[in-house]
Amino acid sequence: MARPGTHSARLRVWLLLVAVGLTVEPVCGVWPLPQSIHQSPDRYSLSPQLFSFTYGKDSAAQTGCSVLDAAFNRYFSIIFPDFTKGPENELRYWSESIPFVVSVSVKSRGCDGYPDEDSDESYKLSVADGQAVLRSATVWGSLRGLESFSQLVYQDDYGSYFLNKTEIVDFPRFAFRGLLLDTSRHYLPLHAILKTLDAMAYSKFNVFHWHIVDDPSFPYQSRTFPDLSKKGAFHPFTHIYTQSDVMRVIEHARMRGIRVVPEFDSPGHTQSWGKGQPDLLTPCYKGDVPSGSFGPVDPTVDTTYTFMERLLKEVKYVFPDSYVHLGGDEVSFSCWQSNPNVRKFMGKMGFGKDFTKLESFYMESIMNMTAALNKTSIVWQDVFDYRERIPQDTVLEIWKGKGYQAELSRMTKAGHRVLLSAPWYINHISYGQDWRISYAVQPQNFSGTEEQKKLVIGGEVAMWGEYVDATNLSPRLWPRACAAAERLWSDEEKTLNADLAFPRLEEFRCELLRRGILAEPLYVGHCKHEYNGL
Amino acid sequence: MARPGTHSARLRVWLLLVAVGLTVEPVCGVWPLPQSIHQSPDRYSLSPQLFSFTYGKDSAAQTGCSVLDAAFNRYFSIIFPDFTKGPENELRYWSESIPFVVSVSVKSRGCDGYPDEDSDESYKLSVADGQAVLRSATVWGSLRGLESFSQLVYQDDYGSYFLNKTEIVDFPRFAFRGLLLDTSRHYLPLHAILKTLDAMAYSKFNVFHWHIVDDPSFPYQSRTFPDLSKKGAFHPFTHIYTQSDVMRVIEHARMRGIRVVPEFDSPGHTQSWGKGQPDLLTPCYKGDVPSGSFGPVDPTVDTTYTFMERLLKEVKYVFPDSYVHLGGDEVSFSCWQSNPNVRKFMGKMGFGKDFTKLESFYMESIMNMTAALNKTSIVWQDVFDYRERIPQDTVLEIWKGKGYQAELSRMTKAGHRVLLSAPWYINHISYGQDWRISYAVQPQNFSGTEEQKKLVIGGEVAMWGEYVDATNLSPRLWPRACAAAERLWSDEEKTLNADLAFPRLEEFRCELLRRGILAEPLYVGHCKHEYNGL
Repeated sequence: MARPGTHSARLRVWLLLVAVGLTVEPVCGVWPLPQSIHQSPDRYSLSPQLFSFTYGKDSAAQTGCSVLDAAFNRYFSIIFPDFTKGPENELRYWSESIPFVVSVSVKSRGCDGYPDEDSDESYKLSVADGQAVLRSATVWGSLRGLESFSQLVYQDDYGSYFLNKTEIVDFPRFAFRGLLLDTSRHYLPLHAILKTLDAMAYSKFNVFHWHIVDDPSFPYQSRTFPDLSKKGAFHPFTHIYTQSDVMRVIEHARMRGIRVVPEFDSPGHTQSWGKGQPDLLTPCYKGDVPSGSFGPVDPTVDTTYTFMERLLKEVKYVFPDSYVHLGGDEVSFSCWQSNPNVRKFMGKMGFGKDFTKLESFYMESIMNMTAALNKTSIVWQDVFDYRERIPQDTVLEIWKGKGYQAELSRMTKAGHRVLLSAPWYINHISYGQDWRISYAVQPQNFSGTEEQKKLVIGGEVAMWGEYVDATNLSPRLWPRACAAAERLWSDEEKTLNADLAFPRLEEFRCELLRRGILAEPLYVGHCKHEYNGL
Repeated sequence: MARPGTHSARLRVWLLLVAVGLTVEPVCGVWPLPQSIHQSPDRYSLSPQLFSFTYGKDSAAQTGCSVLDAAFNRYFSIIFPDFTKGPENELRYWSESIPFVVSVSVKSRGCDGYPDEDSDESYKLSVADGQAVLRSATVWGSLRGLESFSQLVYQDDYGSYFLNKTEIVDFPRFAFRGLLLDTSRHYLPLHAILKTLDAMAYSKFNVFHWHIVDDPSFPYQSRTFPDLSKKGAFHPFTHIYTQSDVMRVIEHARMRGIRVVPEFDSPGHTQSWGKGQPDLLTPCYKGDVPSGSFGPVDPTVDTTYTFMERLLKEVKYVFPDSYVHLGGDEVSFSCWQSNPNVRKFMGKMGFGKDFTKLESFYMESIMNMTAALNKTSIVWQDVFDYRERIPQDTVLEIWKGKGYQAELSRMTKAGHRVLLSAPWYINHISYGQDWRISYAVQPQNFSGTEEQKKLVIGGEVAMWGEYVDATNLSPRLWPRACAAAERLWSDEEKTLNADLAFPRLEEFRCELLRRGILAEPLYVGHCKHEYNGL
């Protein structure tokens, strides 16, 4: 079992790596693995009393920078969790310790903005005697560097803090490293979402894909259409996200360099929408009469587009990210087919009996609306599968497990940017170490040119909610999602061996526990700081 | 989705049952389903202020009965969780409400004893206007009846408490309804064990099979051999069960009518024992020299038996239950085979090269020791598979999934009492509603006489610890373990249809949440009282 955070564990891992002949450097516990890291056995002791974060003299960001000021406080508590508990050990190290300063320098300020698709997350971290220097182009890069720094610190068996002389040059392999939560099949309380954002930052995820509404419930409290949640949520008060809740999520995410991309999936997956928005969904027919049940959004009436435009305008206003996910997956055609008005419309439009054309017609309208609002659309692969010619800057997301490599080829050949999620549907659980399956994924391993490979902008871990709510979310996500996090951040060449990753992931899992994330065990063993079950 | 605890949910379930034509009675939410239950739509309102438990005049147990006094307090808080929170609603119902008294009568007192294999858990419960009468032979039966009673109470949409006119005659199908926790592969903090006992009582489980030690760690702090945990636990202070911890577990279990059967598994699964007890394990050899590693307990030396006898004497003293689990599973013979002393012993005993004989020899000694201590042994099926003639009162437990029906036939034909665990290894998870697999198990569906069927004394849900610790224990156990709980308690004829069970189990799962058990969802939906993620 792992004894994380101790020098002996690090030594063991080091010896292991030496033994398998891959490297002669000590491995660091940083997860995901930095692009380049050099560590030496020289170690420096840290005293909480004499430890500080500071802004470099040449830094564009200085005290008052919201993102970094808060990060300094957060990481101090993460690195020295015991220190904040009481004053009794305040002076313990005083006599024997020397100060340690982490100096953070940022090229451009941008403390009050939001991370976006072009955010530079690279950083350089140099740890030497008495000081560490962290340099980055943006505050988002500093956040990544602070996270790595926090993972370098460890305690020996006497509780003293140390870190080794280290040089890190780091940047993400993919710009888009997402995690999807589904708050429709089960409602997730705000606290569960915020905790997930914390853990995402520890793994350097940078996009929270909020699959906020779907068939079962509509928890988003719209200011324009309050009836949507009033009638479509599981409960109009206890099971909704108010505007203030959404703002809290976005701000919590921003402080951690995480984008919030909401998904308003249509025309399918909209049963709950129909409750608060009459005439939005297609009435299904049994023979010549309405059956009383409803199908996907009705794409044949003007009111649908008026509604969607107003909703998307609100979404643009509420969610600052330049991306919005429009769904477009799994549309069942049987209800459309049963409806005489829809059939008439099909004839008028010359669609024949091809309902994929009707869906494409709808999605194109919605995507154009989104473009007019200056937003980039993400859609599920179905939209591409139905009609290859869609607006060029639309991002396509692959969710079907079968043949996803071929789909990557086709989509990138058509010049589209692509997100890969199919192999990371980690709501699908199985017995044992299934993180290894996620870890083995190679997102650029498909037939295509170098240009095509570059169109893979990243991927997403998906935690769909059929069987998941706040009771089991955290241990199902962590540390299983960490496997994809490393695949999306690190150099694939250096991280394909899951056996080598195992002790580092085990150590990281214990670190997640220590930080209050209910991450489940990878295998038999224990952590120094266990969850106490309360 | 379920809206548990509301009248409309009950009505819906009722209508469903009427629709499928199985019964015209309203279904009760009681899980596991009582042997006989009759409910009428007549309902009575309950006011927390005017509600009380009392002992019947003819009851052998009266105020001062530890088990029932505590149960009255516990169930009051379970039935009226809001009432205990503050005084503001103390008089709300005063004017309009009438008193309700639950009168509990027990034939024989036995308040200070422990439940055992012969405990009568049957009860009769009659709910009428203003009072409920609960009658049972023992306090353990009263506990089961109180649990059922608590599940009859529900709140309407205004928060008022109700229960329907009800007649229940109930008793368990099997006397032994166990749940195994493994505290060796991961340490489970005391609190996680106590919470599990709470949830077990809600599902009417009555045996906690404490697989307390195994290869990875020895957390049991022995008074006779303190080095076992000092050297064999993951940590000698933070990862052990002190004598006081064990007493707390046993008393917490007793108060809920749950037996605690400890397992000290040998001769295999003992790697951790070797650390604190030199010369106990067999030294493995490489050629003519010891390899430095150790195998199973060394069955060829007297010191082994002296040690085991002293340990079992302590176990007898510490654990009041008349059963003790001796393990005996998965013994690897390669180390024994490598050891020249063992080989010599084999020759001397005339065992040839059949190491199953050596294991049988060891187990027989241990079982005889146990019998001499007046304890009943449980052993894993391997012991029977190696040698069919073993002490007749030994209970055999089946853990191998393949062909467990044939094994049931063989064991009962040999006249042994049997426990079935193989199909209930619910540490093995899979995606979706795998509780249905547990629910479909028919423990007496094997070829054999009626006498043979009676030798199946029950079964056990096993939650082995390879991938489980306090971070994920509760949602993996609940509500998945409830499926086996119903199979072990209820009439199989009335409970084989999982689709009919589903809404009742969904409701029960919400009730578990309401009681503070982190039970995961069965499918899309929500509960009135969700876990808030904190």
